[in-house]
Amino acid sequence: MERIVATYRIAAPQGEARARASALAAEQSVEMPLAAIADATVLREIVATVESIRPGDGAFEVDLGIAPATTGMEASQLLNMLFGNCSLQPEVELVDVWFPAEFLTGFPGPRFGIEGIRAVSGVAGRPLTCTALKPQGSPVAHLARLAHTFALAGIDVVKDDHGLANQAFSPFAQRVPAVQRAIGEANRATGGRTLYAPTFSGGPAALRSQARIAKDCGVRMALVAPMLVGVAAFVELLAELDIPVMAHPAFGGAARIAPPLLLGKLFRLFGADATIFPNHGGRFSYGRATCMDIAAAARSPWQDLRPTLPVPAGGMSVERVPEMIEGYGRDTMLLIGGALLAAGDRLLERAREFVAAVR
Amino acid sequence: MERIVATYRIAAPQGEARARASALAAEQSVEMPLAAIADATVLREIVATVESIRPGDGAFEVDLGIAPATTGMEASQLLNMLFGNCSLQPEVELVDVWFPAEFLTGFPGPRFGIEGIRAVSGVAGRPLTCTALKPQGSPVAHLARLAHTFALAGIDVVKDDHGLANQAFSPFAQRVPAVQRAIGEANRATGGRTLYAPTFSGGPAALRSQARIAKDCGVRMALVAPMLVGVAAFVELLAELDIPVMAHPAFGGAARIAPPLLLGKLFRLFGADATIFPNHGGRFSYGRATCMDIAAAARSPWQDLRPTLPVPAGGMSVERVPEMIEGYGRDTMLLIGGALLAAGDRLLERAREFVAAVR
Repeated sequence: MERIVATYRIAAPQGEARARASALAAEQSVEMPLAAIADATVLREIVATVESIRPGDGAFEVDLGIAPATTGMEASQLLNMLFGNCSLQPEVELVDVWFPAEFLTGFPGPRFGIEGIRAVSGVAGRPLTCTALKPQGSPVAHLARLAHTFALAGIDVVKDDHGLANQAFSPFAQRVPAVQRAIGEANRATGGRTLYAPTFSGGPAALRSQARIAKDCGVRMALVAPMLVGVAAFVELLAELDIPVMAHPAFGGAARIAPPLLLGKLFRLFGADATIFPNHGGRFSYGRATCMDIAAAARSPWQDLRPTLPVPAGGMSVERVPEMIEGYGRDTMLLIGGALLAAGDRLLERAREFVAAVR
Repeated sequence: MERIVATYRIAAPQGEARARASALAAEQSVEMPLAAIADATVLREIVATVESIRPGDGAFEVDLGIAPATTGMEASQLLNMLFGNCSLQPEVELVDVWFPAEFLTGFPGPRFGIEGIRAVSGVAGRPLTCTALKPQGSPVAHLARLAHTFALAGIDVVKDDHGLANQAFSPFAQRVPAVQRAIGEANRATGGRTLYAPTFSGGPAALRSQARIAKDCGVRMALVAPMLVGVAAFVELLAELDIPVMAHPAFGGAARIAPPLLLGKLFRLFGADATIFPNHGGRFSYGRATCMDIAAAARSPWQDLRPTLPVPAGGMSVERVPEMIEGYGRDTMLLIGGALLAAGDRLLERAREFVAAVR
């Protein structure tokens, strides 16, 4: 198999480029002085190669060729080989990764993707709408009422706030059936197909329990933060769930891995059917170009991997809907959270305005 | 219960301090405009509080009071509430966290700690010695021979290179029994008690399988990278293993969480009995003060939590042993990897020099 090509940006003087590139190659493979390796096969087939060094502004880019065998074809070991030790070097950033086609076949990628989400939600020819149940700390009955209102308005996906996990004020086992029931009632009243995407979180035992509860009460979508549950647990969870999964970027921005690579490409490789990311012009500092790159990484043609639905979020408002559709196009899910809830008593009306703006 | 106090450093102009502190408090709790929250209990008990703002150089520090209830007393949800969304803001760094005593009782902390590791290894009154099996890509027989040599020399702990996971060239199921057997033979020859710490990695199913294999062949210690397996899976794995666990920092330096907090305090809270961190003066850029802070966070008295054994690593050599013992003291494990292997044919001799330097 060809090598994986990982691109790093290293903020260091140009004069150090060659030495640092070689050091990085050793660090991200054998983690020891090459002179101490007697095994010719290891030297030839395991040690990462320096494929290219490109100068830049106060930094330089290095392409390393990483032997696929070192990843064990496993998600967390892939991250380890891409960014395990060098994550401890603050001047190093992982910018992009190119994977050989053969390597990609070892990961299922999105099981539903954009088409699958459209099929499950019944939404064709337009972006999807999404909102979030907030704030955490609310009693289950309040969250269920909110969900009912959003479903009455015709919002396509109602997700948990990613902070809703399994806390005492609204444990998963109580919250999820109640919210799903409320949404079901609204759907029967309207003929709609609003989906509920609860947060799956915690360790393996908790995730298995949540998967069972969700299945029992007819949940049709899931929200998971891969960097919180761990990418290996994420991959395993998706193999057990039979519903589309939306990835949340919580704890992922810290990783000094370029957002289009992490939230777009890697989350797609690991199986996210939709990927939430901070929209430009909101509370977070991603620029427009970064956001477009995330969307492109998520859904551009990529070997046999289904496209992942981009979900721009944060600082969104009904007024920005036309601008968002113009920028992101139709194969997008628009997520408006706090701005809807700010409508207070006019929530149903505001949610309907959101729905109408997108249709 | 009292609030958890989380300290952030925000690289932004002083004039923005108050607004940014309030925004951070909302982001790390309710993630919506406070004006849109009607529930007085949520406003009073769930929304994070701004406890303190302190000016600094081109940055300011903010203390937030985080309601313990929002963490669900679960490791990954704790990280979510400390650094979930704001991890997406590159100018924000998590510097420290103070936990109320009652909160700490919800986490087991180290089950063995320094005393437990000393009991298992039979090492009293001096630092422990540790080395690593490298490079990955080596056949199992080669790794077993290395391990045998290290055990003959009397090194206290032989760990896998953290890059050794479950790859085709040395799958866990073949490598671990072979290495444990080789170390056992050496121990019987010398009367020694060298421990083997293999890498546990991957998703929940893989970890369970590895735990079973390790138990079956008598492995007495484990190496795990919490940021790769996910902290929630880490906590759950430790509850199943009955051996001391050494934490590896792979993928953790990226987190923009201050190293003493992550590698010292949080890994200790989650149960690491030993914690590996990049030593100053080596390949990584942590300064001496940071390293001393990591060691202090790991092993200083902290409510009822057992102390975690600090394991400085990277760029270590036999020549630096006296300096390391002087700096870190006796309750340390010194890890020398590549520098031993650089001795080639003189490996046994060099390893004995390491052992002698520490005794």
